[in-house]
Amino acid sequence: MVQAEGTLAIVIDVLRASTTIVTALGNGASAIIPLATVEEARARQAQEPHLLLGGERNAHPLPGFDFGNSPLDYTPEKVQGREVILTTTNGTRALQGAHQAGASAIIVGALTNRQAVVDFCSSWDGSILLVCAGSHGRFSLEDALCAGAIIAGLDPKLRLTDGARTCRALYEHYGAEQLPSQIASSDHGLGLKGKGYGPDVVFATALDVTSLVPIYRGGEIRPLEG
Amino acid sequence: MVQAEGTLAIVIDVLRASTTIVTALGNGASAIIPLATVEEARARQAQEPHLLLGGERNAHPLPGFDFGNSPLDYTPEKVQGREVILTTTNGTRALQGAHQAGASAIIVGALTNRQAVVDFCSSWDGSILLVCAGSHGRFSLEDALCAGAIIAGLDPKLRLTDGARTCRALYEHYGAEQLPSQIASSDHGLGLKGKGYGPDVVFATALDVTSLVPIYRGGEIRPLEG
Repeated sequence: MVQAEGTLAIVIDVLRASTTIVTALGNGASAIIPLATVEEARARQAQEPHLLLGGERNAHPLPGFDFGNSPLDYTPEKVQGREVILTTTNGTRALQGAHQAGASAIIVGALTNRQAVVDFCSSWDGSILLVCAGSHGRFSLEDALCAGAIIAGLDPKLRLTDGARTCRALYEHYGAEQLPSQIASSDHGLGLKGKGYGPDVVFATALDVTSLVPIYRGGEIRPLEG
Repeated sequence: MVQAEGTLAIVIDVLRASTTIVTALGNGASAIIPLATVEEARARQAQEPHLLLGGERNAHPLPGFDFGNSPLDYTPEKVQGREVILTTTNGTRALQGAHQAGASAIIVGALTNRQAVVDFCSSWDGSILLVCAGSHGRFSLEDALCAGAIIAGLDPKLRLTDGARTCRALYEHYGAEQLPSQIASSDHGLGLKGKGYGPDVVFATALDVTSLVPIYRGGEIRPLEG
């Protein structure tokens, strides 16, 4: 993990943790509590039974959980006013990695809240670290495209690392109009479709549908106060 | 390292090991012997004093070595008919990583021999793994651009991973004409220029100047027989 003191970290896991977090908070969940392991998640809920329990392993929901990792599950009817534990393979761990690296602030970025994240970055006076969760330690096209879509909206005078330049070039090469098709045919997009989660992929590739910015503080993710 | 049995591995370290290997062999060196550590390199030369010794740490030549890692050092006058030990920070290790991963064949790719590598790939009946050496474990723009330049020349019906698609998009976004300027302003390009190796960066970004394909077999790299 890159050193990140004094840094704003943006954690990106388009398929699907970032998108799920943005959606659940947008639908009225009061907080998301990200936990790295299934064991931690179950133990926490045993201690605090009012918490809802969501997450996945190998893309699928876990026995006894209230939700999987499909953003479409987190409807207002189910999440309004509730706190939700979330444990996912890649996204939750990326969040904790950003935290352990000592980032000064950690927000959650998705395509669905891309412009809101860009606007928040514009008010940040310091360096910005985009943390692409990837998939099982490997590079993911959808997270790089989302990072590129964010970078393309930032001050063009910012100094970019090689990785940031590559993400921006990737996004600009395909353009916003190709996001859905490119991500649908990505390694992870095809994998989710094959497991029956094609609608999640479509949902996750919609750009700028909410102004909600989730912020991680004290072990919880809540909407940033406007 | 990705599993690579039955696979052709192309090891890419544009700045500078790949370019240096292609250049030295093109200038008549009979073999390059890549070794991971300075200690191994010195020990091997002590055993076999006819070997020349090249390499770098932190971009600079090492005491008592015949060459650094500048391709411009490996002139015909110095290397004709000679075997050269080479130990570099990233490139040598990437080669050994491809070997340990069990690739069926390992060749060395640079921008200077890009088309020759593409032609060799066209004759390969199996999967292809592009190993971008990067810089101290981090992503490097120049290696991704070189990988993209190779992929752009391959059969467009090949199935690409997310990483391969990204490299191709990166290369197509900038185009061949922008390779020198993009690489000169990359993290590693700027670093080398700052250390006085700007001419190496210019040299390394010339496309398709030789048809030589270096192949790694039995611990040595030699030109592929045409």
